[in-house]
Amino acid sequence: MPAEAARVRWRLDLGYDGAAFAGWATQIGQRTVQGDLELWLARVLHLDEPPRLVCAGRTDAGVHARGQVAHVDLAPGLMPDPAVLTQKLNRVLPADLVLWRVSAAPEGFHARFSAIWRRYAYRLSEPDAHAHPLYRNQLTALRQPVDLDLLNRAADTLLGLRDFGAYCRRREGGTTIRTLLELRAERVTDGPLYGVIECTVRADAFCHSMVRSLVGALVEVGTGRRDVAWLEKMTSGAVRDPAIPVLAARGLTLEEVRYPADAYLAERAREARTVRTTVPT
Amino acid sequence: MPAEAARVRWRLDLGYDGAAFAGWATQIGQRTVQGDLELWLARVLHLDEPPRLVCAGRTDAGVHARGQVAHVDLAPGLMPDPAVLTQKLNRVLPADLVLWRVSAAPEGFHARFSAIWRRYAYRLSEPDAHAHPLYRNQLTALRQPVDLDLLNRAADTLLGLRDFGAYCRRREGGTTIRTLLELRAERVTDGPLYGVIECTVRADAFCHSMVRSLVGALVEVGTGRRDVAWLEKMTSGAVRDPAIPVLAARGLTLEEVRYPADAYLAERAREARTVRTTVPT
Repeated sequence: MPAEAARVRWRLDLGYDGAAFAGWATQIGQRTVQGDLELWLARVLHLDEPPRLVCAGRTDAGVHARGQVAHVDLAPGLMPDPAVLTQKLNRVLPADLVLWRVSAAPEGFHARFSAIWRRYAYRLSEPDAHAHPLYRNQLTALRQPVDLDLLNRAADTLLGLRDFGAYCRRREGGTTIRTLLELRAERVTDGPLYGVIECTVRADAFCHSMVRSLVGALVEVGTGRRDVAWLEKMTSGAVRDPAIPVLAARGLTLEEVRYPADAYLAERAREARTVRTTVPT
Repeated sequence: MPAEAARVRWRLDLGYDGAAFAGWATQIGQRTVQGDLELWLARVLHLDEPPRLVCAGRTDAGVHARGQVAHVDLAPGLMPDPAVLTQKLNRVLPADLVLWRVSAAPEGFHARFSAIWRRYAYRLSEPDAHAHPLYRNQLTALRQPVDLDLLNRAADTLLGLRDFGAYCRRREGGTTIRTLLELRAERVTDGPLYGVIECTVRADAFCHSMVRSLVGALVEVGTGRRDVAWLEKMTSGAVRDPAIPVLAARGLTLEEVRYPADAYLAERAREARTVRTTVPT
């Protein structure tokens, strides 16, 4: 049996203010969420080298997370009580990164491939519906007000399984076929974000810059600068059209990642690893 | 009739992230809320010199405001449509300062002296009830958990009219007699601040550092480090005891200032200008 097989998998639930991170993924010479977390895990667990983390959604520079999920494989016996590790890590982690929980990963769990959907929120403030300055780092300010009915009617046309190549920065060997499960915008009616437009975007998975392009296109329609015919034309394109604005990272938060019941984790991971190349008709 | 009498009074409602301000009051060589607002008012209204603003609560460096109120007296005809001025100012004001509304002040209105009460919130996060990092600049992190029942029972003993000299940094010629109308702590059960302890502190007026000392003393009792007998002893002191911790500014927000019905504005201002020197028995 190879040494790898003897490792134990742990699930980490975490949140961060993305403003001062160059995104999730480790980059040489840059401060990243993965980099900070791997470094502090190694220090607290007295490891010779940082363990490798795998996350559910590799957020870009400036994007926040409330419900990021990651996993790490460790040799048995390395992990103290997970609650104690959570406490210890939160004492040393920088103030813009918090670990909600560490738990033993169930059999078959893979932070990225076992997930059945990811939910993002994109938050917009309109010119005269002032959001409080304390929240400005999680909002994108619009220059024009938005007609939410118009925006939501356009959003409905984008739901379902399709090639979202028109909304993605293409990556070599990757697919841009996704199932968009939810896309709608609402004004927040209560609490500190009162008046803010909150766009919920939920899909089985996302490709690079997809949420920010989708909301960017919808804002074009919601402000009346473009119509649904334009949106349809854009959506049918195979590659990203520069006419679709990619909104700023600061408005975006990874809110939640959902996994199936434990019994289906491995099956879901096998399914998700299979690259889709065609949309069934 | 003197020129002063011909001026028109305007009410300004505003909010700010206090982190990068050296407080409300203008100080030479420092960035202040009053300084920024007076500067931009002068520029937008094309005045030769900045108009003088009077506010309801002169917040300290680092203290935030959601419901700050100020007034400014201008020569008649200087003010464009208040809604237009609000728009124009918000376009130029720095991102940590927002003007909610400009309106004509009713007869007898004085931002400071007409107020009947001020309400502050002080927000605390406990060691294991992690608040999201996006909100860390408006929270003070506690090193120990707090028993809210214990804290609230202690808080009840402080309500009413008394000399709060024990909780105030004394100022020459000022009184420290105040009526504390509300003092209680609750855990937030919903929204982005879920789990945070929110202390509501409401009084007719406050003296310098009063909210932060009051909550500081209550946290001593709530964590079990001190008891109610200690609190009583502290409260009976005429000057601030260094044993009472003054909590960090970042946790404090001026939430709301309340004024009486228009007919009572002038009367209330006359009453508030009278310095109280004794507590009626």
